[in-house]
Amino acid sequence: MKRPVITLLTDFGTSDYYVGAMKGVILSICPDAQIVDITHEIAPWQVGHGAWMLAQAWGCFPPGTVHIAVVDPGVGSNRRPLLAAAGGHLFVAPDNGVLTRVLAQTPPDAVREITESRYFRLPLSQTFHGRDLFAPVAAHLACSVPPENFGPELKTFTHLPSVAPRQTGEGEWQGEVLWVDRFGNVVTCFDMDSFGWVSGEPFMLELNGITVQKYQQYYGAMPANVLHLTGGSAGYLEVSVNQQDAACFLAVGAGSPVILRRV
Amino acid sequence: MKRPVITLLTDFGTSDYYVGAMKGVILSICPDAQIVDITHEIAPWQVGHGAWMLAQAWGCFPPGTVHIAVVDPGVGSNRRPLLAAAGGHLFVAPDNGVLTRVLAQTPPDAVREITESRYFRLPLSQTFHGRDLFAPVAAHLACSVPPENFGPELKTFTHLPSVAPRQTGEGEWQGEVLWVDRFGNVVTCFDMDSFGWVSGEPFMLELNGITVQKYQQYYGAMPANVLHLTGGSAGYLEVSVNQQDAACFLAVGAGSPVILRRV
Amino acid sequence: MKRPVITLLTDFGTSDYYVGAMKGVILSICPDAQIVDITHEIAPWQVGHGAWMLAQAWGCFPPGTVHIAVVDPGVGSNRRPLLAAAGGHLFVAPDNGVLTRVLAQTPPDAVREITESRYFRLPLSQTFHGRDLFAPVAAHLACSVPPENFGPELKTFTHLPSVAPRQTGEGEWQGEVLWVDRFGNVVTCFDMDSFGWVSGEPFMLELNGITVQKYQQYYGAMPANVLHLTGGSAGYLEVSVNQQDAACFLAVGAGSPVILRRV
Repeated sequence: MKRPVITLLTDFGTSDYYVGAMKGVILSICPDAQIVDITHEIAPWQVGHGAWMLAQAWGCFPPGTVHIAVVDPGVGSNRRPLLAAAGGHLFVAPDNGVLTRVLAQTPPDAVREITESRYFRLPLSQTFHGRDLFAPVAAHLACSVPPENFGPELKTFTHLPSVAPRQTGEGEWQGEVLWVDRFGNVVTCFDMDSFGWVSGEPFMLELNGITVQKYQQYYGAMPANVLHLTGGSAGYLEVSVNQQDAACFLAVGAGSPVILRRV
Repeated sequence: MKRPVITLLTDFGTSDYYVGAMKGVILSICPDAQIVDITHEIAPWQVGHGAWMLAQAWGCFPPGTVHIAVVDPGVGSNRRPLLAAAGGHLFVAPDNGVLTRVLAQTPPDAVREITESRYFRLPLSQTFHGRDLFAPVAAHLACSVPPENFGPELKTFTHLPSVAPRQTGEGEWQGEVLWVDRFGNVVTCFDMDSFGWVSGEPFMLELNGITVQKYQQYYGAMPANVLHLTGGSAGYLEVSVNQQDAACFLAVGAGSPVILRRV
Repeated sequence: MKRPVITLLTDFGTSDYYVGAMKGVILSICPDAQIVDITHEIAPWQVGHGAWMLAQAWGCFPPGTVHIAVVDPGVGSNRRPLLAAAGGHLFVAPDNGVLTRVLAQTPPDAVREITESRYFRLPLSQTFHGRDLFAPVAAHLACSVPPENFGPELKTFTHLPSVAPRQTGEGEWQGEVLWVDRFGNVVTCFDMDSFGWVSGEPFMLELNGITVQKYQQYYGAMPANVLHLTGGSAGYLEVSVNQQDAACFLAVGAGSPVILRRV
C-alpha cells in the first residue's frame, strides 16, 4: 500500500521546535505518512510569498497528496481554517489567500471551513495552529478521513489580487517581481505563454531604471556580468546573470515594478 | 508494523555533511526508521538552547520515539554518553545537561551510561560522536535492542540550573529570557500556570529598561508597533509585536533579565 | 522489503520550491523511496564544495543508495548528465567534476551518459534539470531500472584538479583549505594518513601569516582562545579553537593556502 504523502510549507524557519512539533503530531496520528518539507523559509508573515512557492511545488507531487500551508499572521483570530480539494490534491491552510495561486491553476472541487474540533490537538492554542489544527487535520485526511467530515462547504474565501501584467500602451506592459530565488534570479510576472516572444523579437525590460535587452535559453549561454532574460522553470520570464546575483545587481525584490516594451 | 521514529536535534547546521552522515548511519542499521529533524540550528555549543527546543518538541511524538540530542562541546573528552528512558520515549545525548528540561517535565525511569562499543561505528572519532556513537546507538534502540544492553544505570548526571522566576519582593519576580524565536517573539521563564493572571490583572513587565503593560490572547489582536505579552504555545509568557520582531525592538536575547510586577 | 534510499545534495538552498519539487517528482515515480537531504547549502555554483560534502557523506549510507548531486552552473548547455556506479552505490550528477572526490575514493565500475529521455520529466526545462532529469532518473534507478538502460558508457568525463599537498622543500609542504564548517573549523587538505605525525612531532602550520604549533585530540582539550590542529572526522587535519570560530579568527576560506613545516 502506498504511504500517504503530506507536504509542509510554512514561515516557521528551522531553528525553533515548531516544524518538529508538527511532524510529531502528524506521526502520532498517521504513522505511515511520508512527510516532505517544501520550505519553511517563507519570509515571516508573507502570505504572498508562500502562495507562489506552494503553486510551484504542489503539482510535482502524486495525486492524493495533502499539502499544509501555514503562513498565518491571523492565527488565533476569527480567520477561518480552510480545507480545499483541487486537482486531485488536498490543501489545508488559513483563509488568508495563501492558496490563491494554486487555485488559479486548478479550480477547487470544494473548499470547506474546518470546524470539527474532534480532529484538533486540544486544548487549541491561540498562537500555534500549525501544531494544534493544521497538522492533525492533515494527518487525519492522509489516513483517509473524508474531507466532508471536517466542516461545511464555503461559497467564498480570501483571494490575493492578480499580478498579471497590465497593458499600459502600444507594445508596453507593466508588471512586477514575483519573487527572487536563492541564486538571485528575479522572477517576474511575465508568463512564458503570453510573453515567450521575447526569445525571438527585440524587447526592452526595465527594472529600477536598468534596462535588459538580451535573452538566452540557459544561464551558461550568458556572457559574464551581463543581465539577461530567460524562461525560468516556473514558467515566467526571469532576469539572471550567469553565476551572479541579478537581484543584488538590480536592487529589486518581490513587488518591484517591471516594464516590458516591444522595440 | 509501525516504522520506528528517530528524531534529531543538533547544533550542526545544515550546510555540512554532518546531518547526512548521521542519517546514513541510521538507515544502514535500521532501514525502516522514520527520521525527523527537530532542528539543527541550535546555536553552536549552546547546550541550554538545545535543552529548551527538545523539551518543547518531544512530547508531540508517538510513544517509543528515540530522540538524539547532540549539542556536544565536550565530544572526545571523558564526558559520558547517556541513554535515558522517560515518559515512554528514549533519549540519547551527551551528559552535559541537554536533557535537563525534558527530565524536569517527566522524571526518567532510568538513565544509563552508554558504554557498549559494539553498538558504535568504529573506529570512534574524537570529534564526531553524532555519527559514530549517538546515531548508531539510536538506530539499534529503534530496531528493538533493549536499553539495558547499552551500559550500566547511573545514579547522577549533569543538570542545568533551574530558571524558574524568583520572588524578589511583594508582587515582584525576577526571571530571564529563555529563547527568542524566528519571529522575534521573546519567550520568558514566566510559565502560564503560575503567571497566567497577567491576562486579567494589571502588571508591568520590564526588559532592558522597557516596560510592557498590555496582554493579548493572540498576535492579530495587538495594534501595530506596540509590545504585548501573550501566552505562547510553549506554555510561557512571551513578549511580541504583531508582525514585527520584538526581540530586535527590545535588544534582548536568551538570558536577558526580566522583571514582573503586579500593579 | 527494504525501502530504497535516495540522497540529495544541491546548491538550491531551502527557501525556494526547488527541493520540494524534486522530492515530489521522486515520490510520484517511486512512492516508497526514503529521501534524505545531505545538504542544499552548497555555496551557489561551487562544484568543488559540493564534491567534498558528497565524498564525506555517501559512504555512511547503505549499499544500493542512489545519490543525486546537483551543483550545476552548466544546466541547459551541452554538459552531459552522468550516472556512475561505484562502491556499490549509484550517483547521478552533471558532468562537471562534482563526483571527483567520491570517485577518487572508490573507482567507478561504470560511468554512463544519461541520454534516454523516456526517463525524464518532459518537456525538459533548460534551467532546472534537478527536477526534470536528475530526480526522475534517480527515482527510476531506485525502483530497479538497471543503469544500462539510461545511456551509453563513457570513457572520459570531467575531473577537478587534485588538491593533495605538494612538497616544496625539506620537511615543507604547501596545501590549501578544503572547506570551513559551521563551527568555523578549517579543514585542510593534509590527510591524517600521511600527516598524522603532527600529533606527536613538532610542526608549524601557517595560514594567512598566522602560525599554529599545537595539536590536540579533541576540542575540549584545547585551552580557550588558542588555535590548534586536530584530526577531524573527515580524515583531514583541521584548525580549530575550542568553542570559537577559527576561520573567522584566521580570515581564511576554501582555497586559502596552507604551509606545513616539520621543525
